[in-house]
Amino acid sequence: MKRYSLGLDFGTNSCRSLIVDLENGQELASRVDPYPSGQEGIFLNPKDPNIARQNAEDYLFSMRESVRGAIDRAKNADSSFDPTRIIGIGIDTTGSSPMPVDEEGLPLSQIHEFEGNLDAMVWLWKDHSSFAEAARITELAAEKRPQFLAKVGGIYSSEWFWSKILHCKNVSPEVFQAAHSFVEICDYIPAVLAGNTKPDSIIRSICAAGHKALYSETWGGLPDKEFLSGLNPDLVELRDRLYSKAVSSDQLAGYLCKDWAENLGLEPGIAIAVGAFDAHMGAVGAGVKEGTLVKILGTSTCDIMVSPREKGLADIPGVCGIVDGSVLPGFLGIEAGQSAVGDIFLWFVHHLVPDSYGRTVDDKFKNLEREASRQKPGEHGLLALDWNNGNRTILVDVRLSGLLIGQTLHTQAHEIYRALIEATAFGALTIINRIEEYGVTVNEIINCGGLAAKNPFLLQIYADITGRPMKVSKSDQTCALGAAIFGAVAAGPEQEGFKTVEKAQQAMTGIREVYQPDKNNHVVYKDMFELYRQLHDAFGTSSWSGSLYHVMKALIYLRERQRQED
Amino acid sequence: MKRYSLGLDFGTNSCRSLIVDLENGQELASRVDPYPSGQEGIFLNPKDPNIARQNAEDYLFSMRESVRGAIDRAKNADSSFDPTRIIGIGIDTTGSSPMPVDEEGLPLSQIHEFEGNLDAMVWLWKDHSSFAEAARITELAAEKRPQFLAKVGGIYSSEWFWSKILHCKNVSPEVFQAAHSFVEICDYIPAVLAGNTKPDSIIRSICAAGHKALYSETWGGLPDKEFLSGLNPDLVELRDRLYSKAVSSDQLAGYLCKDWAENLGLEPGIAIAVGAFDAHMGAVGAGVKEGTLVKILGTSTCDIMVSPREKGLADIPGVCGIVDGSVLPGFLGIEAGQSAVGDIFLWFVHHLVPDSYGRTVDDKFKNLEREASRQKPGEHGLLALDWNNGNRTILVDVRLSGLLIGQTLHTQAHEIYRALIEATAFGALTIINRIEEYGVTVNEIINCGGLAAKNPFLLQIYADITGRPMKVSKSDQTCALGAAIFGAVAAGPEQEGFKTVEKAQQAMTGIREVYQPDKNNHVVYKDMFELYRQLHDAFGTSSWSGSLYHVMKALIYLRERQRQED
Repeated sequence: MKRYSLGLDFGTNSCRSLIVDLENGQELASRVDPYPSGQEGIFLNPKDPNIARQNAEDYLFSMRESVRGAIDRAKNADSSFDPTRIIGIGIDTTGSSPMPVDEEGLPLSQIHEFEGNLDAMVWLWKDHSSFAEAARITELAAEKRPQFLAKVGGIYSSEWFWSKILHCKNVSPEVFQAAHSFVEICDYIPAVLAGNTKPDSIIRSICAAGHKALYSETWGGLPDKEFLSGLNPDLVELRDRLYSKAVSSDQLAGYLCKDWAENLGLEPGIAIAVGAFDAHMGAVGAGVKEGTLVKILGTSTCDIMVSPREKGLADIPGVCGIVDGSVLPGFLGIEAGQSAVGDIFLWFVHHLVPDSYGRTVDDKFKNLEREASRQKPGEHGLLALDWNNGNRTILVDVRLSGLLIGQTLHTQAHEIYRALIEATAFGALTIINRIEEYGVTVNEIINCGGLAAKNPFLLQIYADITGRPMKVSKSDQTCALGAAIFGAVAAGPEQEGFKTVEKAQQAMTGIREVYQPDKNNHVVYKDMFELYRQLHDAFGTSSWSGSLYHVMKALIYLRERQRQED
Repeated sequence: MKRYSLGLDFGTNSCRSLIVDLENGQELASRVDPYPSGQEGIFLNPKDPNIARQNAEDYLFSMRESVRGAIDRAKNADSSFDPTRIIGIGIDTTGSSPMPVDEEGLPLSQIHEFEGNLDAMVWLWKDHSSFAEAARITELAAEKRPQFLAKVGGIYSSEWFWSKILHCKNVSPEVFQAAHSFVEICDYIPAVLAGNTKPDSIIRSICAAGHKALYSETWGGLPDKEFLSGLNPDLVELRDRLYSKAVSSDQLAGYLCKDWAENLGLEPGIAIAVGAFDAHMGAVGAGVKEGTLVKILGTSTCDIMVSPREKGLADIPGVCGIVDGSVLPGFLGIEAGQSAVGDIFLWFVHHLVPDSYGRTVDDKFKNLEREASRQKPGEHGLLALDWNNGNRTILVDVRLSGLLIGQTLHTQAHEIYRALIEATAFGALTIINRIEEYGVTVNEIINCGGLAAKNPFLLQIYADITGRPMKVSKSDQTCALGAAIFGAVAAGPEQEGFKTVEKAQQAMTGIREVYQPDKNNHVVYKDMFELYRQLHDAFGTSSWSGSLYHVMKALIYLRERQRQED
């Protein structure tokens, strides 16, 4: 008899529901519903481009629509489909995306007093307004608790839990005061489905806690009160109202409650897995295992690896986090990433591409790609840094920006488009090199996420620049698939699910295609990467000192050589 | 009785004819005719963006059209206008724009054998293909004839006479072999009008010779044969077929010949002044005198000053040239410039501005300007280098490129447009600072050229960045006006013209308006200029060594401060 799992993937702009066959990973139906409020689901402040907030109600609205829609589609696709055969639900979300809640777990943004107050909403992962607080946390930890920083790459980010809470305290003390607790979205949604959002009883994700909230069992959970008091005395009291325990996503968060079963058109009592971040579950859906780097290529990028707990692992400077159990139980989860990848291309197409490339965004992308793919590496004479949204790994610095060098009076939009793709690939290679320098060997790279599914041109450039084959995950929606896998594992064999994540991966994941590197291109890109590294270090590190006189000249030389080769 | 002079201005893309009343400088009629062949008059090679050539026949075709058209317009404007009252003709052209000619002065491009051969055409001023030869000339001169370099800013440019001839010899020996001589366009056109193009009898311009061909009476004219033989033995023989004397534009090049009088619809025998470059005559038309910096703002920019011969003048490193009599007789002419200004804006609008700013180039410019003018300095967080076409002054280096830093995921086209204008203003300030450092005081700045006439937004930014008032010349076409002034001086009092250039300037030039600097903006721009100088030195000078870690951070800080000030 067929068994299914439901994966729910809460992205930056929409919620996706995916119904998967546990026998073979076949994706029976999926549906995406955009968040209804804000600008594509995001609340911005024109005065401060650092701010990005969300409305928690949007998640619930879109979840309801997309689950119901997916069930309808599954029925249309297979008339024998029976929703009662869905045995597990897994949830992944963006993060760190915390929000303040009251004692009942009600988001403060839903309380009349805080209506329209951006600080009472969900502080979306890419909100960078807390950069000063992040610097303060880094400073204090460097002095008092270096072990905290060692596990998060040496620098605490403005994108993370404590930075956001401390900034909330600083800029909206009334919101902070009213907050009984702060809850990550990946913990909030399973709690809503399980019918109990009381902050004290919410099961918290080790993925969010470990990677973003400085949680580790080795130092007794969240940061100690003495440390927190050094940041702000009010955090001491808050600590008691957060959590003392966080667990892996193979664990149960609860069972689907009656109200939400009705909302979604499902049976009550379905097993709900503990939530985790999209990238981590995406890595599982892509088939992550020891030696595999999974790249989730989307608006931003997450790079995920795992290393067996018993092997031990050195701290890797600049890598976002190393957390026991955050990806697979029994493995240390390694998370790195680039703050903007697809977002850079979208920015460019929306703001700097004339209509001669097409009327719609899709047409523009298509024509940019067609023109850019006719060029050889270096032929455009350009080089870019991929820091339009700061640099997450390996510099962990949001106060960086984009850079483009090499433009002439003849430079065209598709040439810049190619340079921007290359910049993100150089950024990707910088991360691979850093991880390998610290003893973790990358045997294969599996790509997933939106850009992997629809951008062969980008994948070929990534292969050429890294000099490594780029594999693409069989699934187009690995995050939701990973969530479904955890739903099936949370259900366990007793409810016809899986005993381990590995067994579920074997049944449900795979590779669709492989892009092989071109050796000639790789040789040219090696020279360009050397220039990229010099710009990277010159603008991104305080220790660098040197000359850049050769950079423009080297790019011009390369351009001339590549053009003359025809 | 009315007296008129005819100014002929041969620009990069078109020829302009201007008929001016000698009594008051009133511009009776003008007409512009684009060159009929090439891409907007320019022959390009897609394999090598350094190449830019022209067809000498285009000059004659467009001259004929535009003079006849201007006469018709003058008649329409004033029924009493009598073309026989045109007493002088002056000619200005781009340069260094030399071409190979045969013994009769026929351009080689008009000989069947060389049809379609780009190397047999006019090597347009902005042709940069001769960079290697320029480097070789600089190297040899630095070793053997440092006095040559001292007068051209320390570096011999790829845009100049000898670089182009030597490159022609290297890449097209058959063209070089066939060339009896090489003639600058500013010498060729007066010779055509005077009816004698034999290379040996053409009167050569001191402006072209002194600024571009290393000509100086102090070392006996053109570079000596020993020096030339060090570049290439074949140049030694060529030297004898070039010229041994060059003169100022107050001198006569000849009198209008019968054929060309007929072609143009004029009387034979009109005085023709010796030609000069557009910027130098433009400076005269704008009213240049001691202490006045004239900026000719167009696709590129020329900065012209004069200093009395008897005062003497130190060599100024990086300034294109200091030549006795090249602007005004009795004064040392100082020429500096930026390789691209308007060209950078045109490049940006053509290639990187979406149609949301408008369908036409004009609409795009209008809307970019409207949006950009609403911002405060630094609010966009951007900084650019104005080197898309290399840097003429003060680095004298074509192997440089554009650079843009500070872009986020929210940066819009009008913000980049503003940053590009600012970059050219920072470049302008760098030139002013260099000239003043060497003892030439800038008391006033007069702007002319296309951008001065139609871009108040740009002029205000220039005033704010330099902290100096920006005056705008009364005439929109100062180059043609300057040419007309020289025509009237060449005619002299005996033919009802002027005795001196100064007297003609007093009668015929003036100021239309003045842009005053905003003090608050200037303070912000001082900080930005400091960052510009650091990038300038880091990428443009071999001696610089240091850190750039602060640059992105400083721009972000400035952006935040300026946005919060509302």
